[in-house]
Amino acid sequence: MRATTIHAPGDIRVEEVPDPVITKPTDAIIKVTAGCICGSDLWPYRGHNDITAGDTIGHECIGVIEEVGSEVTDFAVGDFVIVPFDHCDNTCAHCRYGMQSACVNLGMTASGQAEYALVTQANGSLVKTDGMPDEALVPSLLALSDVMATGWHAAVAAGVRKGGTVVVVGDGAVGLCGVLAAAQMGAERVIAMSRHEPRQDIARQFGATDIVAERGREGAARIADLTEGIGADAVLECVGTDDAIKTAFAVARPGSTVGFVGVPHGVELPVRKMFQKNVGMAGGMAPVRRYLPELLELTLSGAINPGLVFDLTLPLEESPEGYRAMDERRAIKVLLRP
Amino acid sequence: MRATTIHAPGDIRVEEVPDPVITKPTDAIIKVTAGCICGSDLWPYRGHNDITAGDTIGHECIGVIEEVGSEVTDFAVGDFVIVPFDHCDNTCAHCRYGMQSACVNLGMTASGQAEYALVTQANGSLVKTDGMPDEALVPSLLALSDVMATGWHAAVAAGVRKGGTVVVVGDGAVGLCGVLAAAQMGAERVIAMSRHEPRQDIARQFGATDIVAERGREGAARIADLTEGIGADAVLECVGTDDAIKTAFAVARPGSTVGFVGVPHGVELPVRKMFQKNVGMAGGMAPVRRYLPELLELTLSGAINPGLVFDLTLPLEESPEGYRAMDERRAIKVLLRP
Repeated sequence: MRATTIHAPGDIRVEEVPDPVITKPTDAIIKVTAGCICGSDLWPYRGHNDITAGDTIGHECIGVIEEVGSEVTDFAVGDFVIVPFDHCDNTCAHCRYGMQSACVNLGMTASGQAEYALVTQANGSLVKTDGMPDEALVPSLLALSDVMATGWHAAVAAGVRKGGTVVVVGDGAVGLCGVLAAAQMGAERVIAMSRHEPRQDIARQFGATDIVAERGREGAARIADLTEGIGADAVLECVGTDDAIKTAFAVARPGSTVGFVGVPHGVELPVRKMFQKNVGMAGGMAPVRRYLPELLELTLSGAINPGLVFDLTLPLEESPEGYRAMDERRAIKVLLRP
Repeated sequence: MRATTIHAPGDIRVEEVPDPVITKPTDAIIKVTAGCICGSDLWPYRGHNDITAGDTIGHECIGVIEEVGSEVTDFAVGDFVIVPFDHCDNTCAHCRYGMQSACVNLGMTASGQAEYALVTQANGSLVKTDGMPDEALVPSLLALSDVMATGWHAAVAAGVRKGGTVVVVGDGAVGLCGVLAAAQMGAERVIAMSRHEPRQDIARQFGATDIVAERGREGAARIADLTEGIGADAVLECVGTDDAIKTAFAVARPGSTVGFVGVPHGVELPVRKMFQKNVGMAGGMAPVRRYLPELLELTLSGAINPGLVFDLTLPLEESPEGYRAMDERRAIKVLLRP
């Protein structure tokens, strides 16, 4: 099949690789309708993560079931499915506790930017639609495989409540989905930190009531002004850098929680400040499967439209250009069509 | 008045210092019935915190109101009161949010190991009993000024729930009170980590169902065994060292929270592990006033008896011996009578 591979920092190719094959009875193979590039794919692209040259890359996709293992009883060839980037059996103690991202049979989509993807634990992981969805829904359904569920997880972890004031640090696709999640959960005020006009526009469409363009200390001072010196009731940290974390703790009111979903890179948590301010922290890799049924319903009913985060669609063969566009912040999130 | 002072690491004295005086209309002066030595007093005693030579030390006490400022309307001379170590107006936005430890008018008891103590924000901070309490209740009432409320805060921050499995890291007075809090909140299983028999005994009296004497990795392995490899639903970290924090995160199940109340010293939070396991952290300096009404009721009704943590009572003049006894772990917690 044709698949996106990474060979070195900055070296993304689309080339022929072996088709995925079913090796376990719980596996399924998905013919990818749409895949996409994640902000976290930029970590190896920028040389911040180790790379095994020639590995396929991409963990987000939706598509049609092509083949199933003998124990996959809940799905059949031809079903249209959302593929959570983290696969789970949805029956182990961690899954039952709502922590499918810590499943004892955890798996990951390894070729979401390709023609086919393997899903381990298909029964536990996948969620299907009734028939083939409208083409117009494809971007929003694709967003459920990671970024929308991850933004939702940040809001859940931060304890967003009706009527509260929420700050979202990070205006990538996940941060924008965090804005959407907070608004959907009934936050009265959603403050998006963003310097980029196209992202500010989407944040507003997603329900942001205020935009703060300043960063760091100035951004924190601006949010102090907006909250009468009190700070936010919940903060969503959707970047993963030390600066973003510091900003998140600076704007959180005492007794609140920073929900974090950006993979931490070079982060040193301000434990003394957390202690003094009683600001907690919660989050991590999103248990996508936990949220999928609810998010699918909200998407199909039109209550949320997370697909807006895709501002560039390319054919799979142009995957390298998609990486460049995201790396240079020319695009928020790139959708790839095999 | 006679008061305990600190002059250098290991140099505790009882000497004559000026009586506290009312300088603000919200102040009150307490004639101390009983004060005590806190685990956190050992940080400067052991040279881990800065010391201003000659400063009074001690932040926990109960007693009788001796004098009140002109705006102290809720209390009168002669009232017997519990003095939260952190004073608050109980009306500001942070107090109303339950974060009295972040009150905009925050104050601290500065001479709890002395004849008299000054309370700022008396109206907001103090809680009184009906008449003079029985002598037998003095230790338990004294425990409410800090350690019991702090252990309770750890349990609240960790999200202890009915039927859950709780691990308490730390067998000092706060850790033991954390065991009592978790049991009182309905945890089905309370695992106390303690190597010291007298502390294990109190932990059992407070409701510990299991004792783990091993520490570090061995302790974590033992708890994995006890929880069928799943880990604890809530973890109370009541020490503040890096080792204790690491143990706390090692035994926490994915999706759970470490409630931390030990003042962090040399702690580096395992942010990657927190992310991978989705283990959150919450806590800090306890908002004592928030919990006092409930804890006082539980104490007066006999439902809890936190005074058990005091295993040595000394006259105020023997304060230096009290510090030595706690430093050498000959005593869990020392009560001082002026």
